[in-house]
Amino acid sequence: MANEKIPYKIYLTEEEMPKNWYNLRADMRVKPAPLLNPGTLEPMTAKELSAVFCDELIAQELDNTTPEIPIPDEIRSFYRMYRPSPLVRAYCLEEKLDTPAHIYYKFEGNNTSGSHKLNSAIAQAYYAKKQGLRGVTTETGAGQWGTALSMACAYLGLDCKVYMVKVSYEQKPFRREVMRTYGASVTPSPSMETSVGRKILAEHPGTTGSLGCAISEAVEAAAANPGYRYVLGSVLNQVLLHQSIIGLETKTALDKYGIVPDMIIGCAGGGSNLGGLIAPFMGEKLRGERDYRIIAVEPASCPSFTRGKFAYDFCDTGMICPLAKMYTLGAGFIPSPNHAGGLRFHGMSPVLSQLFHDGLMEARAVEQTSVFEAAELFARTEGILPAPESSHAIRAAIDEALKCKETGEAKNIVFGLTGTGYFDLVAYEQYNNGTMTDYIPTDEDLAAGFAGLPRQPQE
Amino acid sequence: MANEKIPYKIYLTEEEMPKNWYNLRADMRVKPAPLLNPGTLEPMTAKELSAVFCDELIAQELDNTTPEIPIPDEIRSFYRMYRPSPLVRAYCLEEKLDTPAHIYYKFEGNNTSGSHKLNSAIAQAYYAKKQGLRGVTTETGAGQWGTALSMACAYLGLDCKVYMVKVSYEQKPFRREVMRTYGASVTPSPSMETSVGRKILAEHPGTTGSLGCAISEAVEAAAANPGYRYVLGSVLNQVLLHQSIIGLETKTALDKYGIVPDMIIGCAGGGSNLGGLIAPFMGEKLRGERDYRIIAVEPASCPSFTRGKFAYDFCDTGMICPLAKMYTLGAGFIPSPNHAGGLRFHGMSPVLSQLFHDGLMEARAVEQTSVFEAAELFARTEGILPAPESSHAIRAAIDEALKCKETGEAKNIVFGLTGTGYFDLVAYEQYNNGTMTDYIPTDEDLAAGFAGLPRQPQE
Repeated sequence: MANEKIPYKIYLTEEEMPKNWYNLRADMRVKPAPLLNPGTLEPMTAKELSAVFCDELIAQELDNTTPEIPIPDEIRSFYRMYRPSPLVRAYCLEEKLDTPAHIYYKFEGNNTSGSHKLNSAIAQAYYAKKQGLRGVTTETGAGQWGTALSMACAYLGLDCKVYMVKVSYEQKPFRREVMRTYGASVTPSPSMETSVGRKILAEHPGTTGSLGCAISEAVEAAAANPGYRYVLGSVLNQVLLHQSIIGLETKTALDKYGIVPDMIIGCAGGGSNLGGLIAPFMGEKLRGERDYRIIAVEPASCPSFTRGKFAYDFCDTGMICPLAKMYTLGAGFIPSPNHAGGLRFHGMSPVLSQLFHDGLMEARAVEQTSVFEAAELFARTEGILPAPESSHAIRAAIDEALKCKETGEAKNIVFGLTGTGYFDLVAYEQYNNGTMTDYIPTDEDLAAGFAGLPRQPQE
Repeated sequence: MANEKIPYKIYLTEEEMPKNWYNLRADMRVKPAPLLNPGTLEPMTAKELSAVFCDELIAQELDNTTPEIPIPDEIRSFYRMYRPSPLVRAYCLEEKLDTPAHIYYKFEGNNTSGSHKLNSAIAQAYYAKKQGLRGVTTETGAGQWGTALSMACAYLGLDCKVYMVKVSYEQKPFRREVMRTYGASVTPSPSMETSVGRKILAEHPGTTGSLGCAISEAVEAAAANPGYRYVLGSVLNQVLLHQSIIGLETKTALDKYGIVPDMIIGCAGGGSNLGGLIAPFMGEKLRGERDYRIIAVEPASCPSFTRGKFAYDFCDTGMICPLAKMYTLGAGFIPSPNHAGGLRFHGMSPVLSQLFHDGLMEARAVEQTSVFEAAELFARTEGILPAPESSHAIRAAIDEALKCKETGEAKNIVFGLTGTGYFDLVAYEQYNNGTMTDYIPTDEDLAAGFAGLPRQPQE
């Protein structure tokens, strides 16, 4: 089919959709470092993790050797409701840029959660249901992950309890109402429902909350309520495993038309989209079958890859979760308030951190006004209003396409368009009004975060 | 292919996409009544219409005889960016309802305008551009049509001026920002920019505006500015022509799998979606080739089909537009403020009005709490948060599927899912909180609207 005209959108048939997730860790010579018990600095055992996570998800979290893990039929049925997602040839953007490059994007926003998060939400909810649990707890900031989890739980008849950062709960009521429409209970965090919430409220009565506090509340609620477990939308190995569906579909679609990407670009916050998108391509690279440039794009205001340290750190600011070895800005790092989009997590997926450390991928940081400039151009030419997160990848894809224009090279650029920006219009309004600003943390800002790193095992 | 398992989503290939729009009027024995000049009560001529509308659109508006009108290549390119839209088999909803019926929906919400409106917006913008115009003007209420037009104009490099009902401009800023991101200028109406706006502001300084006033401002702005024309998102014959792409794709998808619908259901406000969805099926019915039940679903609070009069009326409350013969509640009719969704127009497409008058289709009115109940069930089972407008069709489809459950009949139900509800979450919040109410106008309410009908030509 290599000579056939490439359509605007490549959709796989149901038969072509992946039947297995791909576990990239199986092909990594240097495995990601294990999660550590923060008290003993010993690797967390499955038993220790079982108070918080579902058993089958723990097995996936710890499995560094099985390359293919079958996707259960029930999850594949759910995937068929909103997948396959299209791989789109950005003909209109190419024409606008007047570039010889061929630009493709894998669009994960065509579902009500508005992003790729649903791919892992349904998997995590499924295993919780299968274990006979009553429900799951989680935290959410602006609400993308919480919405995805609510949808998955509604489908399976599972209770869903979301702790939503209070300032988002009050100022961004729309995602909250989507979650409620899907039957989730949404609690502004910090709340009086948990001891950590009560403690924080006693110390800081006027606080508007933080993601770290919401994580702590959700973890406590899962541990305290029989039949509940905690679930997380990024960072973890299991999440990257589920998200490999993105990359597997992308690769199948490209292979159908004989297209070989020169570079694969994704935005990076906790790493769930990037890790999923690149998985099968990185696998080929690790096995020495083919080489690709792989580029992570992160906000200059939260630059874990480009300015972070590769060290063990807490995943939550409450410091009750296991330690993960990752590129981190310190669990106490909080991006400047003028940071508009997502990608605010202080750390990075241990899998991606190891790959980056081993020189297998690149990373770059971009500033938010340039990100929104790219978002606007993309919206006007490709017709999709992108999420700010996704627009980091758009920025890099446009920059690479413009380099091709200079050199005259017809490179194949593939990037991940993780979602839509329909709930991010306050940020778009700032951009439209010219009031959006940039922010790059100083070395002193970063030093404060690094000072809070926990004791390292080798010390 | 009739025996093949029907996939969750049927996507046409680019080659299977329609190359022509279908002009249903060509097959109507009784044609829709012509637009009349309100002064002379004579049919509007192309010349009279040309002050407000583009020439080629006027030709389409007046053409009652050409069955197939080629879709220009540029429009087909744009369609390929977000079309074909999927025809979805509602397996999950069927299972939840435990019905033997087979339910299919044509989902038009997978684009940033969030609805089918883009199908006509790009066509109208294209002909304006082709005529060498500088820009177009329009009105918008909540913003669905304005967003679609902004996207089309951004793509073509055409100026877009939107008069947005002031209360929506202030209370629903998100759609406004989408339009601004696409480069449209958005003016709260009434404004000081037009004489009709200034007049209304002088008489009612505190007014929050109305759709009728915004239409009048947009029409005045088009007539007053050289190189501008006015465009409208529904009601007109030309709009139904462009929207026939919905029905043509639906029919091709059904034919691929040998599926013959027993009934086709669509929500009806001005009629653009319904008229487009049913076009090729109604054509077969008119030509005596096959029979279908065709069901229009409208809000009980704005019941033009079920309680309106078939008469000539103004399309705008400012009464400066031509008269159209249609089912109408009177140009002065305004739905009760507790009406949450769209479908607020007092009249109905002349094409659909004639078909309904001739007994070729059914209509029913539904109350909004039952509509949101259906919306919630649909969201939880099918994973898409539907627009309130679309949810009228969902309500009727569920009701018909439940009848099949009683009778044991495996009927094929096809309905139009026109769009998503991401910008309608204030209404969802009312429903979630149990504060949503219903409203059915009394006969006295309706009499007030009918009293304002203009002089009829036969009188």
